[in-house]
Amino acid sequence: MKILVVNPNTTVSMTTKIAAAARAVARPDTEIIATNSQNGPASIQGFLDVAKCVPGLLEEVGRHPDADAIVIACFDDTGLDAVRTLVSVPVLGIGEAAYHAASMVANKFSVITTLSRSVPGIENNLMRYGLAQKCAGVRATDIPVLKLEEGDPATLFKIRSEIREAIHQDNAEAIVLGCAGMADLMAQLSEEFGLPVIDGVAAGVTFAEALVNNRLTTSKIGAYSAD
Amino acid sequence: MKILVVNPNTTVSMTTKIAAAARAVARPDTEIIATNSQNGPASIQGFLDVAKCVPGLLEEVGRHPDADAIVIACFDDTGLDAVRTLVSVPVLGIGEAAYHAASMVANKFSVITTLSRSVPGIENNLMRYGLAQKCAGVRATDIPVLKLEEGDPATLFKIRSEIREAIHQDNAEAIVLGCAGMADLMAQLSEEFGLPVIDGVAAGVTFAEALVNNRLTTSKIGAYSAD
Amino acid sequence: MKILVVNPNTTVSMTTKIAAAARAVARPDTEIIATNSQNGPASIQGFLDVAKCVPGLLEEVGRHPDADAIVIACFDDTGLDAVRTLVSVPVLGIGEAAYHAASMVANKFSVITTLSRSVPGIENNLMRYGLAQKCAGVRATDIPVLKLEEGDPATLFKIRSEIREAIHQDNAEAIVLGCAGMADLMAQLSEEFGLPVIDGVAAGVTFAEALVNNRLTTSKIGAYSAD
Amino acid sequence: MKILVVNPNTTVSMTTKIAAAARAVARPDTEIIATNSQNGPASIQGFLDVAKCVPGLLEEVGRHPDADAIVIACFDDTGLDAVRTLVSVPVLGIGEAAYHAASMVANKFSVITTLSRSVPGIENNLMRYGLAQKCAGVRATDIPVLKLEEGDPATLFKIRSEIREAIHQDNAEAIVLGCAGMADLMAQLSEEFGLPVIDGVAAGVTFAEALVNNRLTTSKIGAYSAD
Amino acid sequence: MKILVVNPNTTVSMTTKIAAAARAVARPDTEIIATNSQNGPASIQGFLDVAKCVPGLLEEVGRHPDADAIVIACFDDTGLDAVRTLVSVPVLGIGEAAYHAASMVANKFSVITTLSRSVPGIENNLMRYGLAQKCAGVRATDIPVLKLEEGDPATLFKIRSEIREAIHQDNAEAIVLGCAGMADLMAQLSEEFGLPVIDGVAAGVTFAEALVNNRLTTSKIGAYSAD
Amino acid sequence: MKILVVNPNTTVSMTTKIAAAARAVARPDTEIIATNSQNGPASIQGFLDVAKCVPGLLEEVGRHPDADAIVIACFDDTGLDAVRTLVSVPVLGIGEAAYHAASMVANKFSVITTLSRSVPGIENNLMRYGLAQKCAGVRATDIPVLKLEEGDPATLFKIRSEIREAIHQDNAEAIVLGCAGMADLMAQLSEEFGLPVIDGVAAGVTFAEALVNNRLTTSKIGAYSAD
Repeated sequence: MKILVVNPNTTVSMTTKIAAAARAVARPDTEIIATNSQNGPASIQGFLDVAKCVPGLLEEVGRHPDADAIVIACFDDTGLDAVRTLVSVPVLGIGEAAYHAASMVANKFSVITTLSRSVPGIENNLMRYGLAQKCAGVRATDIPVLKLEEGDPATLFKIRSEIREAIHQDNAEAIVLGCAGMADLMAQLSEEFGLPVIDGVAAGVTFAEALVNNRLTTSKIGAYSAD
Repeated sequence: MKILVVNPNTTVSMTTKIAAAARAVARPDTEIIATNSQNGPASIQGFLDVAKCVPGLLEEVGRHPDADAIVIACFDDTGLDAVRTLVSVPVLGIGEAAYHAASMVANKFSVITTLSRSVPGIENNLMRYGLAQKCAGVRATDIPVLKLEEGDPATLFKIRSEIREAIHQDNAEAIVLGCAGMADLMAQLSEEFGLPVIDGVAAGVTFAEALVNNRLTTSKIGAYSAD
Repeated sequence: MKILVVNPNTTVSMTTKIAAAARAVARPDTEIIATNSQNGPASIQGFLDVAKCVPGLLEEVGRHPDADAIVIACFDDTGLDAVRTLVSVPVLGIGEAAYHAASMVANKFSVITTLSRSVPGIENNLMRYGLAQKCAGVRATDIPVLKLEEGDPATLFKIRSEIREAIHQDNAEAIVLGCAGMADLMAQLSEEFGLPVIDGVAAGVTFAEALVNNRLTTSKIGAYSAD
Repeated sequence: MKILVVNPNTTVSMTTKIAAAARAVARPDTEIIATNSQNGPASIQGFLDVAKCVPGLLEEVGRHPDADAIVIACFDDTGLDAVRTLVSVPVLGIGEAAYHAASMVANKFSVITTLSRSVPGIENNLMRYGLAQKCAGVRATDIPVLKLEEGDPATLFKIRSEIREAIHQDNAEAIVLGCAGMADLMAQLSEEFGLPVIDGVAAGVTFAEALVNNRLTTSKIGAYSAD
Repeated sequence: MKILVVNPNTTVSMTTKIAAAARAVARPDTEIIATNSQNGPASIQGFLDVAKCVPGLLEEVGRHPDADAIVIACFDDTGLDAVRTLVSVPVLGIGEAAYHAASMVANKFSVITTLSRSVPGIENNLMRYGLAQKCAGVRATDIPVLKLEEGDPATLFKIRSEIREAIHQDNAEAIVLGCAGMADLMAQLSEEFGLPVIDGVAAGVTFAEALVNNRLTTSKIGAYSAD
Repeated sequence: MKILVVNPNTTVSMTTKIAAAARAVARPDTEIIATNSQNGPASIQGFLDVAKCVPGLLEEVGRHPDADAIVIACFDDTGLDAVRTLVSVPVLGIGEAAYHAASMVANKFSVITTLSRSVPGIENNLMRYGLAQKCAGVRATDIPVLKLEEGDPATLFKIRSEIREAIHQDNAEAIVLGCAGMADLMAQLSEEFGLPVIDGVAAGVTFAEALVNNRLTTSKIGAYSAD
């Protein structure tokens, strides 16, 4: 099966990271098509960026009509409803996938994201998906997405410190790392803190495989009907 | 990987059906160990049956320490919290898995289950998982579980009629078939009504594969800690 | 003061109607700048249209930097968060304004909108604004937006019939007419059914005046911060 | 139009302040009738004071049958349901108006009120109006209402300190000043902290103007029906 | 122990009925002091009546300082917060008591009350107490309180019909009879319909006895603090 | 009347304490039958213990068919739904009873329990009963149940410290002591901290008396129907 993993921003280095994270969990017979929007913001932080990314995202999705499932590889689940209306195959946002995965392995989870400005959008998504009640807290490291790319020690220090707070203050039992660029930290932090640390790209790809294997497609009755 | 699919009641014919549904979606390299409790009720309808099934379920789970993931194949997610506390591998109830799958392919779903008496338990689970707000309604056919086994036309007529009501009255965009014995009807009804019809066994097995591929395990901090 | 009333679709005849509804309630010293997106869908029904309208909407807003407040004249509150992030002046969606107005004059209100497909978006907005609990129901007439323009008797018959149902089935105490094109029906239906019938354009314009008179601006701390 | 602004307590100096705040935002052609209950408590703090103020409030409202709208100028929205049942014109509580205004200019707001004892009543109102989810916290300064009148520096220091906490601890994006006597601080604090600071009297008067301009009246079907 | 059962309206014949219902369940060593407000409305239907009854209720409560517990014998729990602030002994509304009792013997209950106009107040109380989620519906017979007194066959017919609907439409498992005047019907209807039918006066008196035996008093920290 | 008070664990010394707490509040003509499961865990902490206790609990309940009401004397309300399905008499969990009692004497209460691991089960119960919104927080002392038995000063110190936090941090107005073994501390702590401190055994026994005096039985329609 072919899974389209679309990064809705235009930063190719981030797409490369996302592609690696996707391929690391995909089944041998799953083809990962990792791509990004051709036009739009270089990173997505806040509501204006989200809105500006959607047209490029829809275009990019339109270029891959043979995908069996689509993963939107931005943690704010950019344009999820619009893409579901555009296509018939299953569509998952990586934030959405991560929250569902976390709900399956823990009673409560916390989300660690980049900027404070992204928190309200994430909280709205959680409320919308019904999973707000499983979320013990959404915490911001206040490290910009593109800086995260560079992987300097101060960044890691801040992430570790927020995980510690999530465990001790929020009573989080699992951590969702709330940015596509954080994928490679997952295994390391999970072992270090002794609890599930969830990466949305991995969750998105494996759940997309699952939905395709269930022969499920996006419902075209009601909210996502085509016209 | 090995996935233990446990039917918490003692009806072997139902376990056979569940095993077939599980194997139909599992990856070639996934080994499905389908089994059932050795002691306890023949079917599970209502809170007393649920309680009586749990000891047999825990024993059966204990017999398979090499499982990489566990699927509890009863729609009321019998003993889910207890099994999660007992083991470290991922554990999914088929009701839980079906609700998550439905939330990924539709804005709202309805559940069609067997007896009215099972409805409150399902509603409690939905509230607990946070997914009650995605559920447009839980409907009962009032056909006992074991009768469903026999597959007579009146049974099918009643299920079809409830799906129709769910679509037109509840505005359901997907249907969750709320009983392990209904698995073989899925594809047929999905095509007939033109919307996703979700079987919990299939959803449970494929999501279990996904969680294992994510290297996720049940959190042992907090709710499910071992002692 | 200058209030920018933006129709996010490109149908000029609808903008004309919206302008008239806006001017009918605006204070003598309020200048209504009624305009519409230059590019994008001719009407907005469902999530894909919403997404496609946002870039044109943002551009149009950018053309009017001297507006003291902005009213987004589409009932699904297209791009509300993005526009709030773009500017500092108060921004209101006409759906949002109508729900707030209805909450001030009735214990419960029902919404009558056009297509069934628009219902989930409206329900999500209500949940997001916190006002879902004041809403007794969202009902669709299944009359397309542009047909509504033509004002034929069958359309009116259907709207009346839904209002009647809202009163008797939902126990609605006020009606929100959920489409910018319905503005001119307000007074007539209010008198006929003896309860408040609320038009979002009128509510949006008068609340925008109120916010400006309060010297309130969109908060730039948190969700809507500029960068 | 005539707007009756009723202070439900009997402290005339507070009515004078309220009148000034009301007139500061009212349109030139709006006549503000500022008055207070003739009998009842001198200030309202807690449920017993609220109950004791209602008869005097209803009497005072009855003395002004020509009002086009009514604003109840106590932050706990004393007797709001009763006054809505008594009259047909729009009725707004200043707490209610402030929460609606805050919801229009910020994603989350915090409330700063006087005594801890007033907090539960405010929280109940927020839950009732549906706006609890937009409220990041209700904080008490523990300065009695009448002391607030005197405007000493310690009072201002405590209010500033609570605003700071609301921003940094609750992630509040706007502040509602929860007492009619605080009206004159609004502009000053808004500039100082760089976020909207909302006064209920101003919000109430301008929203009342808006409702009257919409020709909306209190629904007489259901909750507020006359007999 | 002495339990003050106060009817907050002034209709003595209703007080007599309430007294009988209270004494029928009270322990031999419990003294029931049944009384009513000396001033105020003859019956309570809607928010205006509620407000007008509170002063008389507070006065009447003040006349009985030796009561060990207080039951407010009106189904809308008139003035509950104010009375709790006035005294230190336990205070129960008969609506409140009935909802708690129903929650202890059934998974979901429906409420049958008199006029439609009373429904919103009851729904608000249920939300406030947290018990709205246990309530399957609030139904009105549209029989005025005082007519209920007369006990004519048409009244009984309507109540029976609403109970039947509550069972079959709402899936109610217990019925709360939502008016003090309905007390004598309880046993009869319970047997007839084969499910618990709960009278608030009986529930209120027995729970008051329970709280006194637990040596519990109304908390004077926070919401109900004296001044 | 006969009230069966069942300790679902097998620790007889705890049953003795529970029996004393029950008899201390029971009416002279109430016979308390205090007993415990014959098989199962020695204490209940976490979901696995809960599940393992249920069969022994059901057996023990079955040995006392003449009980007029049943109190399940474990704070996590072990097997409550199953016991309600097994019998027709009223059944109360001591957690459940305590939350209802606390809701009647305070606007908000906090729960102090033993181990952190028990917190999620308690939070789930509160959500299920609808009373989560009345609960200001669930706090763990992290003292194992059986250690509590011994009553050493360090234990008391920790409980006192958590009560203090509950009052000052959570704004709790009442305290629920979340373990059957804590019953004898109630009066002492209540006086010391000046607020209601509620013991579930006492609340359970007195509410069971109340339900029996109301002639209420567990509904056999719906959730708890026998077969």
